[in-house]
Amino acid sequence: MLREIVRTIEAKQSFLITSHVRLDGDAIGSEVALYRLLTRLGKRVAIFNEDEIPENFLFLMDNVEIYHNIPQISDYNVLFVIDCSDLERVGKNASALKKIETIINIDHHLSNGRFATVSYLDPEASSTGELIFRLIKEMGIPLRKEEAEGLYTAILTDTGGFRYRNTSKDTLLVAAALVDSGADPQWLSENIYENNAVVKVLLHAKALETLNLALDGKVAYVTVSKDTMEALGAKTQHIDGLVDIVRTIKGVQVAVLFLELDRNFYKLSFRSKGGVDVEKVARELGGGGHLNAAACEVKGEIAWIRDRVFSSLKEIL
Amino acid sequence: MLREIVRTIEAKQSFLITSHVRLDGDAIGSEVALYRLLTRLGKRVAIFNEDEIPENFLFLMDNVEIYHNIPQISDYNVLFVIDCSDLERVGKNASALKKIETIINIDHHLSNGRFATVSYLDPEASSTGELIFRLIKEMGIPLRKEEAEGLYTAILTDTGGFRYRNTSKDTLLVAAALVDSGADPQWLSENIYENNAVVKVLLHAKALETLNLALDGKVAYVTVSKDTMEALGAKTQHIDGLVDIVRTIKGVQVAVLFLELDRNFYKLSFRSKGGVDVEKVARELGGGGHLNAAACEVKGEIAWIRDRVFSSLKEIL
Repeated sequence: MLREIVRTIEAKQSFLITSHVRLDGDAIGSEVALYRLLTRLGKRVAIFNEDEIPENFLFLMDNVEIYHNIPQISDYNVLFVIDCSDLERVGKNASALKKIETIINIDHHLSNGRFATVSYLDPEASSTGELIFRLIKEMGIPLRKEEAEGLYTAILTDTGGFRYRNTSKDTLLVAAALVDSGADPQWLSENIYENNAVVKVLLHAKALETLNLALDGKVAYVTVSKDTMEALGAKTQHIDGLVDIVRTIKGVQVAVLFLELDRNFYKLSFRSKGGVDVEKVARELGGGGHLNAAACEVKGEIAWIRDRVFSSLKEIL
Repeated sequence: MLREIVRTIEAKQSFLITSHVRLDGDAIGSEVALYRLLTRLGKRVAIFNEDEIPENFLFLMDNVEIYHNIPQISDYNVLFVIDCSDLERVGKNASALKKIETIINIDHHLSNGRFATVSYLDPEASSTGELIFRLIKEMGIPLRKEEAEGLYTAILTDTGGFRYRNTSKDTLLVAAALVDSGADPQWLSENIYENNAVVKVLLHAKALETLNLALDGKVAYVTVSKDTMEALGAKTQHIDGLVDIVRTIKGVQVAVLFLELDRNFYKLSFRSKGGVDVEKVARELGGGGHLNAAACEVKGEIAWIRDRVFSSLKEIL
């Protein structure tokens, strides 16, 4: 498959790159690396993302042509769909994008709709960044610093800083190769993880004071009310990372965040340790995710929601 | 030097391994890896550490013979001093240990007193664990899982989860080799970083509510009073990691923790980003550390201490 993608890159002139809504480091880092690669090969390239780039990834975006409204589709021969198991994850313009003649999908998610002309899929890879690395290797050209920085960002964030289950020997070997090509682990980590708004730190502090344990200490949870969010002037993005802190408690197998979006309407985020499958619990409640990280939205009174969550969790613990 | 250490290991029968007081992951992980190696070679081995093993590293210590009071010195032919630039860092029994005939020092710190019979020193290495890895390679024997786990712990913790400046290409290559030998990144990270006492999380929450900015937002600081510690029943070890959270704030170049140890007596911890040298500031106040992480203890009223710290920081920012 990689060979076929390389041939397409060689043969075609204009490329549009896209990824899923609610952008993460793997989507953005992989997009940017591919953008830089195609640009230096003299191709015409642009990125289209329905959502804005989160602030902590903006440092990667210098001189990148990016659209948040869909550009003129007829300008492009090839569409790269990155880190998406399904074209619909691109957002509300997915069907317009289908008109591009050649669609290449590169992805590491388990379920994949195989919607593309060519697909390069590997659910064993840590991240889509790891797959773009393989693509550049396959082309037989040396990686440049700017590409290495995008790919390191992709791998670093999708492995939770080399901590999650998807951190394999190969993942670390690729990271080493990226450092060799100029990616600076300290500089990248500081940009990505040490650019928090003051309000985020204060929100985490406030939220952690609501910490409670359930099911003999195997579950820890925090609750963030709409009032707290409003009093601090916090946005939803400032919640990021909170539930990961809750998971760091000894003996806790599942951490849960109950975030009040509106009256009797909550977003629930789950994190688990080891082999505990919280995706199952989130799916029962209409959500989804991965084995160790999942989320859903539930309507109802908080006491009723909690009871329902704890009885689901009881069955898997 | 490595060759000479290998010859000593082959020639001698009994080994005592030690490291510095206030044990960290590099000291413990390196000691354990060396202990496991020597044990499987049929040697008589023990570890001596003045301090107790911190709780989050106890999972590494199964079937390890460890003394916290000094054992019978005449039982040992060789003393390994690990991760110490100076024998005095071993604690109050340093002089008794000097009586062991052969002393081998393996260390990655910049200043080194060269107190040993044989020294293997490399300040370019991420950690002492990386040096023990090289020693085992030099011996030409395959690494075992238990050794790899100790070394991965050493590297993971001394690089702050592959985030600090000492994370090089070689560091990531060694980490890959350790995973190949059986070290499990997820399992190790969870054991080390996700075993926090509930009181630690609550203390961090309480402390972060005291967050303040200084010097145009380039400095962020928190203050923890003795009253807060006592009210929560928190110990000094529960402060670990707090100042790292403060450093994650956007625009902050230096994070400072003022911890009240006693009336008019404070421990100050500094963390910096990039090339900002906080060791210099801590040293002026009678402390020390590394470029991005340093500490000191100061007597005086908090307002006076803060003024002094901020005027020192102003000169380097």
